[in-house]
Amino acid sequence: MKQKASIKSDIEIALGSEMKNIKDIAEKIGIGEDDLEFYGKYKAKLSFDILHKLKTKEDGKLILVTSINPTKAGEGKSTVTVGLGDALNKIGKNAMIALREPSLGPVMGLKGGAAGGGYAQVLPMDEINLHFTGDIHAITTANNALAALIDNHLQQGNELQIDPRRIVWKRVLDMNDRALRNVVVGLGGPAHGIPREDGFDITVASEIMAVLCLAEDLEDLKARLARIVVAYDYRQNPVTVGNLRVEGALTLLLKDAVKPNLVQTIEHTPALIHGGPFANIAHGCNSVIATKAALKLADFVVTESGFGADLGAEKFLHIKARNAGIKPEAVVIVATIRALKMHGGLNKEELGDEDLAALQAGFENLRKHIETIDGFGLPFVVALNRFSTDSSQEISLFEKLCNQDGIPFAMSEVWEKGGQGGVHLAETVIKAIENNKKTFEPLYSLSDTLEEKINIIARKVYGAAGVEFSSQAKSQLLQFDRLGWSRFPVCMAKTQYSLSDDPSKLGRPEGFVIAVRSLKPSVGAGFIVALTGDIMTMPGLPKKPAAMNMDVDETGNATGLF
Amino acid sequence: MKQKASIKSDIEIALGSEMKNIKDIAEKIGIGEDDLEFYGKYKAKLSFDILHKLKTKEDGKLILVTSINPTKAGEGKSTVTVGLGDALNKIGKNAMIALREPSLGPVMGLKGGAAGGGYAQVLPMDEINLHFTGDIHAITTANNALAALIDNHLQQGNELQIDPRRIVWKRVLDMNDRALRNVVVGLGGPAHGIPREDGFDITVASEIMAVLCLAEDLEDLKARLARIVVAYDYRQNPVTVGNLRVEGALTLLLKDAVKPNLVQTIEHTPALIHGGPFANIAHGCNSVIATKAALKLADFVVTESGFGADLGAEKFLHIKARNAGIKPEAVVIVATIRALKMHGGLNKEELGDEDLAALQAGFENLRKHIETIDGFGLPFVVALNRFSTDSSQEISLFEKLCNQDGIPFAMSEVWEKGGQGGVHLAETVIKAIENNKKTFEPLYSLSDTLEEKINIIARKVYGAAGVEFSSQAKSQLLQFDRLGWSRFPVCMAKTQYSLSDDPSKLGRPEGFVIAVRSLKPSVGAGFIVALTGDIMTMPGLPKKPAAMNMDVDETGNATGLF
Repeated sequence: MKQKASIKSDIEIALGSEMKNIKDIAEKIGIGEDDLEFYGKYKAKLSFDILHKLKTKEDGKLILVTSINPTKAGEGKSTVTVGLGDALNKIGKNAMIALREPSLGPVMGLKGGAAGGGYAQVLPMDEINLHFTGDIHAITTANNALAALIDNHLQQGNELQIDPRRIVWKRVLDMNDRALRNVVVGLGGPAHGIPREDGFDITVASEIMAVLCLAEDLEDLKARLARIVVAYDYRQNPVTVGNLRVEGALTLLLKDAVKPNLVQTIEHTPALIHGGPFANIAHGCNSVIATKAALKLADFVVTESGFGADLGAEKFLHIKARNAGIKPEAVVIVATIRALKMHGGLNKEELGDEDLAALQAGFENLRKHIETIDGFGLPFVVALNRFSTDSSQEISLFEKLCNQDGIPFAMSEVWEKGGQGGVHLAETVIKAIENNKKTFEPLYSLSDTLEEKINIIARKVYGAAGVEFSSQAKSQLLQFDRLGWSRFPVCMAKTQYSLSDDPSKLGRPEGFVIAVRSLKPSVGAGFIVALTGDIMTMPGLPKKPAAMNMDVDETGNATGLF
Repeated sequence: MKQKASIKSDIEIALGSEMKNIKDIAEKIGIGEDDLEFYGKYKAKLSFDILHKLKTKEDGKLILVTSINPTKAGEGKSTVTVGLGDALNKIGKNAMIALREPSLGPVMGLKGGAAGGGYAQVLPMDEINLHFTGDIHAITTANNALAALIDNHLQQGNELQIDPRRIVWKRVLDMNDRALRNVVVGLGGPAHGIPREDGFDITVASEIMAVLCLAEDLEDLKARLARIVVAYDYRQNPVTVGNLRVEGALTLLLKDAVKPNLVQTIEHTPALIHGGPFANIAHGCNSVIATKAALKLADFVVTESGFGADLGAEKFLHIKARNAGIKPEAVVIVATIRALKMHGGLNKEELGDEDLAALQAGFENLRKHIETIDGFGLPFVVALNRFSTDSSQEISLFEKLCNQDGIPFAMSEVWEKGGQGGVHLAETVIKAIENNKKTFEPLYSLSDTLEEKINIIARKVYGAAGVEFSSQAKSQLLQFDRLGWSRFPVCMAKTQYSLSDDPSKLGRPEGFVIAVRSLKPSVGAGFIVALTGDIMTMPGLPKKPAAMNMDVDETGNATGLF
């Protein structure tokens, strides 16, 4: 494989890679030109026809990639996901990848895309990180059409008696724009709306994104949209999209966004990239439609969940998998020596130094996530994502710690070597699937109360000593139960950096209590969000935004992007 | 031709028409598959390569379609534009169409698309009226990235010393959302921005839309973006995009939006639909890139300007044509009996009744626009867009009035009959071009002062007795002259309903004075906007928004759209 990887940037590697026409990629998985809707030569949506036709086919096997709690050192979960897909094809398996589509907002702020890295990337990475096929723009539009329709309803007589102080539907932009977090709208006099407090989230935090990612098809999408609670009336009863009678219009705006996008990796492995909800206030994984289509099209599908296993994998298993009637056959838990050393107490500046004590201490974070996945009754493999700074002593210690506990693991060098660098990982994963004797079991049942569900997640997944509900959360538990919302799964909004709700507690904290500040119903998506700590749903830009480095030459090639 | 037209809706006719693959349409005009970027089967963008290659080809002849002052009766300017293109092909000419792309916002509000009507439509009309190829979403994104970067600059130390009270760059959404016209942003404390008054426009009112539509290519686009004035500093000096150093990033966000979109009419005439700036605070016509490409690809290109000839044609000729170094060979002025009767004093409810006196009185509005076009030294043809309610007496009177003054005219029945209904119009236009002895001459020179330019437009185009400048406008005239902005053409923001600045004065008002309230520099686009009266740059939704009728079936077909 290419050995000079380490000195090239992701965008240089991406632009230097030769893509096949997406028609040829589709042909490999049995999809003809008529079932594709092209967006240029290298991106295509799958038609409703083919999605429908696929339903009778048998499912392949799903492999879920998750990780330890993320740190500033970076874990490379997307990179391992892409590289594992390439590696499976390399060892003769018929594999596909299903990934989230990245939000454009953060691209303007910090360098770094969300389409893998090094020689394990999906292409065309510049377009995937910019407008892609317009899915997120369609969601922005649907979200803001709904917001405009709500304010217009107030302005035009307020037949539904919506309490302007209790409108919970916020506007969104796919942009990092802190000045929009808290705004007052409707100023300027009677012709310009009803003044009220409002705010903007980033588009991927819209409930419409979560809804689109959990919908089975266009009809299910419409039914879910209709159930979204946008406000409460003066008697504090919920007001839904269905009450406003605009679920048809919103579905129409999303009719193309709901179709999954086919692209390819550097090694031409087919990848469906579709949907990307937040992993805190939402469930953080690509669309059900894409995952299910991929399972019909390939024998093995590698997919990714958000953040660490405490948030991403838990939600994948309790929300997405249960909702869609699917389950992974194996889970890959990504770790790096660098990140484990941070969990063991090092600062980012100290990561270059060998530190076996920190590594051993930090290993406890990985161990907790392994216990969790094991608790679900799922086979797993730890993927150690290699960095050139890892010392051989550190690697040996890592191997020793895994072997002591009988933890199956493999090195991943996909960033540097592409699929070839993931062959051992792929073989280990296949072995884990073939030898599995366990049975998957969710940790809680939908018939548990919301309070029980939150307690189970906190204790079994986070290792918490208990849960404390604020008085607001307590009264919401009663209210939601009255409204029949106790049957929903819970979506925990917690910091991704710690198993606890305190981002500074790295490693494997113990004896902590999870404080639930408030609850937020996502009735359309079909879950109840439990908010712990401060959850940011509209990021800001840094002092020197990445936008200042970006440019495009006269033939349309991006520069300074990542 | 199809005779049952009158009982089918536009969307029914559109969905019932068979489209050719856009590859076949492109082939007819000599564009191969490699130079197309497909968006599904029926839409494609032209590549930078083909745009570059075309530059050496000879230009075809441009035909500009404009109209009398619009009324609530409707004129059908887009319909005539599309039908004339079809008709020219029918009589053996090689013709193309260049049109604006419609804004999605109004589609959610009022029934009615912007892609022609009846049997003179561009297809796929549902997609053209929804997200199309994402151009407007890209402009929304670039506009709001810039807004976020400005607020971030304030937050991060304000190196450029921007006065937060003098930020003139507004955010935009492609939505009718009156509650966003006047807002306060940056609330919530020190982590959430600097509180200030702000507002949202609809996306098509963004200066970036005007910039994109006047740019020659990607380099020119970047240079224009850099010149946009976004704010003034504490010393009241302009602060530009170039000062913020983000013109590269904005150009990158627009790299696909700048490529024109190829679609087809019901009769398979190739049409470029690209860009759609407001016709009041901007110049209101499709992109220069699209018009120039069409002129290279066809012998005759039919294009449209915004509103009536007083606004749209004046701006086309003084701003777009001068900027791009092109000129029309003939102008078509669209009128209807119904609209002329409204100009003659009738209400909308009375239009069904024959009223010769009202028609004769209203004819004066048409006569003024004819005089204006004649004053530019351009040959013209009046197209009477026929309605089934027009009486034969009314038609005879119209013909008599035209013949008396030697006004060349033709009936248009393209709504009902497609190109066949425009054959006589097409022949009359060709004759006007062939027999032309006049020479095109702008009414003012760029070296005239802004005050002189405004006076010339008001007197010669509107028939005003004079112009009154507010004290604010007067001090701006001095300020803009100091800043070197007097060299720009003027873009009048005036009501479209009247030749005057009072929307209630229909027909041909006389003795009125145009009141210029204030000026607004669009330095990137390259014009100075003169604001008269209240110009709405963010529409609202009506009591029963069209969104309430919209739906989509399980196979993705739109219903209730128009």
